[in-house]
Amino acid sequence: MSIDSGMVVYETRELISKFFNLGNPLQLCFTKNATEALNIALKGILGPNTHVITTSMEHNSVLRPLKYLEKYHGVEITIVWGNSIGEIDPDSIKQCIKSNTTLIVATLSSNVNGTVLPIEEFGRISKEYGILFLLDAAQGAGSINIDVKKMDIDLLAFPGHKGLMGPQGTGGLYIREGIKINPLLHGGTGSNSKILYQPEMMPDLLESGTLNLPGIVGLNKGIDFINSIGLSNLKCYKQMLFERFYEGVTEIKRIRVYSHIGKEKNSGILAINIGDYDSSEIVDILNKQYGIAARGGFHCAPLAHETLGTGVHGIVRFSLGCFNTIEEIDYTIKALRKISYGIYKKNRA
Amino acid sequence: MSIDSGMVVYETRELISKFFNLGNPLQLCFTKNATEALNIALKGILGPNTHVITTSMEHNSVLRPLKYLEKYHGVEITIVWGNSIGEIDPDSIKQCIKSNTTLIVATLSSNVNGTVLPIEEFGRISKEYGILFLLDAAQGAGSINIDVKKMDIDLLAFPGHKGLMGPQGTGGLYIREGIKINPLLHGGTGSNSKILYQPEMMPDLLESGTLNLPGIVGLNKGIDFINSIGLSNLKCYKQMLFERFYEGVTEIKRIRVYSHIGKEKNSGILAINIGDYDSSEIVDILNKQYGIAARGGFHCAPLAHETLGTGVHGIVRFSLGCFNTIEEIDYTIKALRKISYGIYKKNRA
Repeated sequence: MSIDSGMVVYETRELISKFFNLGNPLQLCFTKNATEALNIALKGILGPNTHVITTSMEHNSVLRPLKYLEKYHGVEITIVWGNSIGEIDPDSIKQCIKSNTTLIVATLSSNVNGTVLPIEEFGRISKEYGILFLLDAAQGAGSINIDVKKMDIDLLAFPGHKGLMGPQGTGGLYIREGIKINPLLHGGTGSNSKILYQPEMMPDLLESGTLNLPGIVGLNKGIDFINSIGLSNLKCYKQMLFERFYEGVTEIKRIRVYSHIGKEKNSGILAINIGDYDSSEIVDILNKQYGIAARGGFHCAPLAHETLGTGVHGIVRFSLGCFNTIEEIDYTIKALRKISYGIYKKNRA
Repeated sequence: MSIDSGMVVYETRELISKFFNLGNPLQLCFTKNATEALNIALKGILGPNTHVITTSMEHNSVLRPLKYLEKYHGVEITIVWGNSIGEIDPDSIKQCIKSNTTLIVATLSSNVNGTVLPIEEFGRISKEYGILFLLDAAQGAGSINIDVKKMDIDLLAFPGHKGLMGPQGTGGLYIREGIKINPLLHGGTGSNSKILYQPEMMPDLLESGTLNLPGIVGLNKGIDFINSIGLSNLKCYKQMLFERFYEGVTEIKRIRVYSHIGKEKNSGILAINIGDYDSSEIVDILNKQYGIAARGGFHCAPLAHETLGTGVHGIVRFSLGCFNTIEEIDYTIKALRKISYGIYKKNRA
C-alpha cells in the first residue's frame, strides 16, 4: 500500500513537472500551501548581507518573510513600486541591482486587482545578472501558462487549491538543479533513516514528515482536468466572461474599476469600489442580499493597496473561474447596478 | 462560505481542545503533520546556549531538528538512553538538568516497539525545575489518554492521521498560554492584513497561509468517531487483540519479541525479528505471500534501534488498530509460524 502511495506521489510530481516544464520531477517538493513554499525558498536562500528585490504588489506571504529576514537576519530589501494600476517597470528592477543582490522575488499577478507582472523580463534580467528569480505563482498557476525553462524561473512556488483545482492543504516548490538551499523543516524522510542529519538529495531535503496524500491525489486530478480541457481553452472562456463582466461593470455609475481589461495584462480579477463605501460593506450586501461571493478588505497585500490608492476602503474583488456562467456574470452586473443606485438614493435622502 | 469554513475550523479546535484538555482552543495551531509541529516547537523555543534533554527512543522528527540546532545554533543536547526494551528512567532525566536546561522533549511511546515513556513523571520533573516539556504524541494520541493540564505538558505535537483517525496532511501544536515562541513561517493570516509583520496572537502567529480545510474536517470526524465509541473502549478492544497476538507470536520458534506485553507499557505495537533474517525480507514475504501490511527497516528512529540492539536487521513492526479483527490476528500468527518454519527448513537444506 505504501509503495502504491509512493507511485501516485511520483506520478503527480511528473504531471506537475510537465505542466510547468520543470525538467526533473525530483526537483519539486510538495508543501502544505504556497506560503510554506515561499518561506522555504526565501529563508533557505537569503542570509546576512544579501540583497533582495521585490515589488509593491506582493502578498504578505512574500512581504512578511522578507520583513522578518530584514529585522532578524540582516537581509536588505528593495521594494519596487508599481504605477496606479500596479504595473511594474522591469527597468526599475534592473536599476536596483547591486553587487550583493541575490534574488528577485515577484508575484505572477496581483491577488488584489489581477495585474500581470512582466515575469519573462524579470527572468531575463535575473539571468543576465546571475541573480536567482523566485516566482510566486499563487495567483496565476493554472490560469497563465508557466514554462520555467523558457521564462528563466529558478524557483517556483505555487498553491494546489487555486488555479490548479486541487484541494486546500496542497502546494509545491520547484528549485532548479544546482541551487543550494537550506531546509526549513528537519525530520523523517523515509530515506537514510539511520542518519541523524537531513538527507541532501531532493526532494527529501525539503519534504519531512507524512505528505498530504489525499490532497496530492486531488491535485493530480485537478491538473488532469485542466489538461483534458486545455489551459488555453479555459483561459479563452474565462476571458469571454471577464470582458462581459468588465464592460457591464464599467457602465455603472459610481463604480470605479482598478483592473486592466487587457487579455495578457490581467489574470482574471475585477477589482472595484462603489463611491466612498467601504469594500467590506459592499461585499456583505453582495453576499447576504444576492448570494454572490466576493472578497473585500485588504487581501493580505497592504502595499498593493497603497499602490492602487485603496488603503482606506480596500477593494471589492471578483475572481472569475471556469465554472462561472454568463448568467452569473449578468446577475452580478445587475446586483451591482442595484447596489450603486441604492447608495445614490440613500445619500440623497 | 469562508465564514462557514472558519466555523468548522474553530469547532475542530474546540473538539481537540476538549480531547486533550488544552483549556483555550486558540492555543492550538493546525500543522501539516507532527513533524511540522515539532519543528515549530523546537526551533521556536531553543536558541544559542540553551540545553535540551531528550531520549534515545525519539523519531527523526525530533532528533534531526535537534541535531540541526546543535550544529548551527549552539543548542546543547543530552540524550538519555533507554534500557534494552526502550524504557527511560525519569531519574536519569533529572540528573541531566543543568542551569541552562530549557526543554525536555520526549515521545509518548516508541514508534519502533511501542514502549510507553513515563510522561507524567517527565511533566512533574519539568514543572519542578521550571523547564518546558514538549510531548511528541505522534505515537499514542488517540490511543493513550492525554490530559495536558494533569500531565503538566507545556507543548503538545500530534499528527491527525494516526490514532486520531483523520486524513494525512493534518496535525497540530498546542502551546501553553504565556510561552513565547518564534514562528517558523511568516505570511498571510487573514488578520492584521495591513501590518507587514506576523501578528503575535495565537493561533495566527503560527498559522500562515491557507489551512487544509478538507483535512481538518476529516480530523474532526475522526475524533468524533473516537468519542462516540470511547477511547477506553477502543483501548480495551485493541488490548484484547494485542494480547492474543503477543501470546501467539511468542509461542513461535525463532521469533524474538522486542515489545512489552503490559497494558500501560505498550501503545499497541508488536516488534519482532525472525532468526537472523533482515526485517525487510520478512515484511516482503508477509506482504506478497500473505497480504499482511507490516513495516520493516529502521522506522526513522536510528537511536531506538541502537537501544534495542536491532541496528543491523531492523525490526518487523506490527501496529494494531481498532479495525483489525481476531481472524486477522490468528491469520497473521499462522503466517509467521509458516515463515519461521520455512526459514528453518531453508537453513537446514
